[in-house]
Amino acid sequence: MSLVVQKYGGSSVSDAQGIKRVAQRVVETQRQGHQVVVVVSAMGDTTDELLDLAAQVTQTPPARELDMLMTAGERISMALLAMAIHSHGAVAQSFTGSQAGMITDGIHGKARIIDVDPYRVRTAIDKGNIAIVAGFQGMSRTTNEITTMGRGGSDTTAVALAAALDAAVCEIYTDVDGIYTADPRVVPSAQKIDKISSEEMLEMAASGAKILHLRSVEYARRFGIPIHVRSSFSDKEGTWVLPSPGDKIKISKGVALEQPIISGVAHDRSEGKVTVVGVPDIPGKAAEIFGIIAGAHSNIDMIVQNISTSGTGRTDISFTLPIVEGAEALAALRDAQERVGFEKLLYDDKIGKLSLIGAGMRSNPGVSFTFFKALSDAGVNIDLISTSEIRISVVTRADLLDTAVRAVHKAFELDGADTATVYGGTGR
Amino acid sequence: MSLVVQKYGGSSVSDAQGIKRVAQRVVETQRQGHQVVVVVSAMGDTTDELLDLAAQVTQTPPARELDMLMTAGERISMALLAMAIHSHGAVAQSFTGSQAGMITDGIHGKARIIDVDPYRVRTAIDKGNIAIVAGFQGMSRTTNEITTMGRGGSDTTAVALAAALDAAVCEIYTDVDGIYTADPRVVPSAQKIDKISSEEMLEMAASGAKILHLRSVEYARRFGIPIHVRSSFSDKEGTWVLPSPGDKIKISKGVALEQPIISGVAHDRSEGKVTVVGVPDIPGKAAEIFGIIAGAHSNIDMIVQNISTSGTGRTDISFTLPIVEGAEALAALRDAQERVGFEKLLYDDKIGKLSLIGAGMRSNPGVSFTFFKALSDAGVNIDLISTSEIRISVVTRADLLDTAVRAVHKAFELDGADTATVYGGTGR
Repeated sequence: MSLVVQKYGGSSVSDAQGIKRVAQRVVETQRQGHQVVVVVSAMGDTTDELLDLAAQVTQTPPARELDMLMTAGERISMALLAMAIHSHGAVAQSFTGSQAGMITDGIHGKARIIDVDPYRVRTAIDKGNIAIVAGFQGMSRTTNEITTMGRGGSDTTAVALAAALDAAVCEIYTDVDGIYTADPRVVPSAQKIDKISSEEMLEMAASGAKILHLRSVEYARRFGIPIHVRSSFSDKEGTWVLPSPGDKIKISKGVALEQPIISGVAHDRSEGKVTVVGVPDIPGKAAEIFGIIAGAHSNIDMIVQNISTSGTGRTDISFTLPIVEGAEALAALRDAQERVGFEKLLYDDKIGKLSLIGAGMRSNPGVSFTFFKALSDAGVNIDLISTSEIRISVVTRADLLDTAVRAVHKAFELDGADTATVYGGTGR
Repeated sequence: MSLVVQKYGGSSVSDAQGIKRVAQRVVETQRQGHQVVVVVSAMGDTTDELLDLAAQVTQTPPARELDMLMTAGERISMALLAMAIHSHGAVAQSFTGSQAGMITDGIHGKARIIDVDPYRVRTAIDKGNIAIVAGFQGMSRTTNEITTMGRGGSDTTAVALAAALDAAVCEIYTDVDGIYTADPRVVPSAQKIDKISSEEMLEMAASGAKILHLRSVEYARRFGIPIHVRSSFSDKEGTWVLPSPGDKIKISKGVALEQPIISGVAHDRSEGKVTVVGVPDIPGKAAEIFGIIAGAHSNIDMIVQNISTSGTGRTDISFTLPIVEGAEALAALRDAQERVGFEKLLYDDKIGKLSLIGAGMRSNPGVSFTFFKALSDAGVNIDLISTSEIRISVVTRADLLDTAVRAVHKAFELDGADTATVYGGTGR
């Protein structure tokens, strides 16, 4: 008997019918001899409806109260799911984040998990019951306040519970049947990936692939939890995200050993680009700038600083960050302009980021050549470049992003014969 | 500076507009120099919507999960109200029942308060903040589970908090401007009562007046909390429910001292009547029967047993109870038929109960004469009679109840010149 953590997103539980379907699947899993812990998001549109209500009341809701409001969402879906499971003759108990021991820091709206103590969940499953846990939410140990983890937080809840309970697998159910080599809405010929390493998945998620939340992949990698991303609408195998290097194999077009193994192309339009112009080229200035951004609780993505060539003793630092955090970060920088001594700020939120992810890139110069040639042939100008061991990312104009993604996907021969199903989901 | 507890029902916060209006009133109360604790029910139709969702999933939801589901309702309304208050420049913090220290027993769906420890609420108001507390919900200390207190529970939350915080007054806001001498939907000439004693209000509530929940009045009486029932749509004074006997004065038609002071006529159609026929007339049988009903967690209202005159050594016991609890109570009795030794059960849910409430009835035989003559003149036959120091109740056929209420209201000269506003409300 093994322990399985299953996470169902908002699109899987969008109405009573969906909840009953999920209940059926959960009960079947238990009848196959598993202990089952279910993590559930808010029903379909609940999140948007609650945000809409808040917007009708005020444009500047306090973060604490917004968390209090949003956590009503999972409360509803988890209680209904427990009821639906009962009607199949199984016993289920639902638990809020705080009841499930999801201890977070006190940053409302984007809390991070600092401890997981799921003793009530353990007690429930040891009694033979099914435990249902509200995704996305926790409680701060220092403030005793209800917190939420931000978009995608339910994935993180699921993986964190899987780690704390030593689960055999964390199954992430969604409305697509796995991770694709590119977003099928942009590249209809994209192919489903059968296996991918946590490292590459991490780069995919960080580069804008929306199916798995970045933090959940980081968590899974750190604690060695295998994730199985699959559709709640079918029984097909989905994509396995595997933590151990021995499994770091991707089914792709007959690649030989030592050849680069391209996992896929990810893209992201949710970021804006900030350029801090004329930063004094002396030690400590970058730290000062990013200290200010961290103080505004912004999540910086790419950072690019080129060498100072103008002879003025000044340099420019560019970085990207979520558009929704742009205003606050810019305000914080402006307040510190005199102290830091930079000349001006530029901001552009009409950008797109494209990333190619795959093992063995660094040692294969041909990869970057093929990559940049594909972009050039497609007439896509490049604004920023950043690379890692297993990723190349570029920032382009937003309106050229789709063209760029299709060009790169094709250049690396990732196109499949079939047309893929199209993405959806609510993103909690 | 005094501490005021204000409770707003679902009809006062039925939409964003209502929430903003309530926020305005709360902030004004604080600006008048008061500490303010607000108890809020779920928004307008939320309760029914959640129940409807549950019904779509299963016909037999487990009580624990139903409580988990229902408590999402106040979570939404209280967070939105806190946001709306912030937009007025005041600071509000919302608290769930468990955060506010509402400790209950573990009976899901109709939990009773066993302790109130509102230290977080106290801390908030001592900082100058407005505290908002979810009505209707609590936490069991023994099971650590979320509980709800049943319909009208928010009134009880408000009064219990007022008692624990030693508040000057507990204001219950609703969509009518006070307690009336009869239900204005049945008696359009009913008059608003300006002051009523807790004792009489208790009888009114127990007899079917819906504005204040019975348990909240019991609580207020026990802890000496003045309740002010008023409309959230106007600034008019409503009805004061006063615990001290010195205040037990009602503004009525020029009554002299030592004359009975009739408070009003209440009615109730929510009950059914059970008759246990042929109970052995030996000590202990009534206790046995009501022990069985208590075991089914039913709330019995009137109990009538007449003397055994048939010479058979058997008697009949009748009682009324909420229709919704009828089936369970009957089943429990049937299971025990052999042990108790009664002959059969009769059940009738087409009944209505009418009660006349007022001080000094017992010592004024004229009251019962006027009462029964009014019913007789109106052609209303009486099924059961039960009396207390300050109340006479009768059970009649349901279809004659309105006629009966109007006849009694008129006979005691309670009719006013104006037509009253009509009742509404959601009943949490």
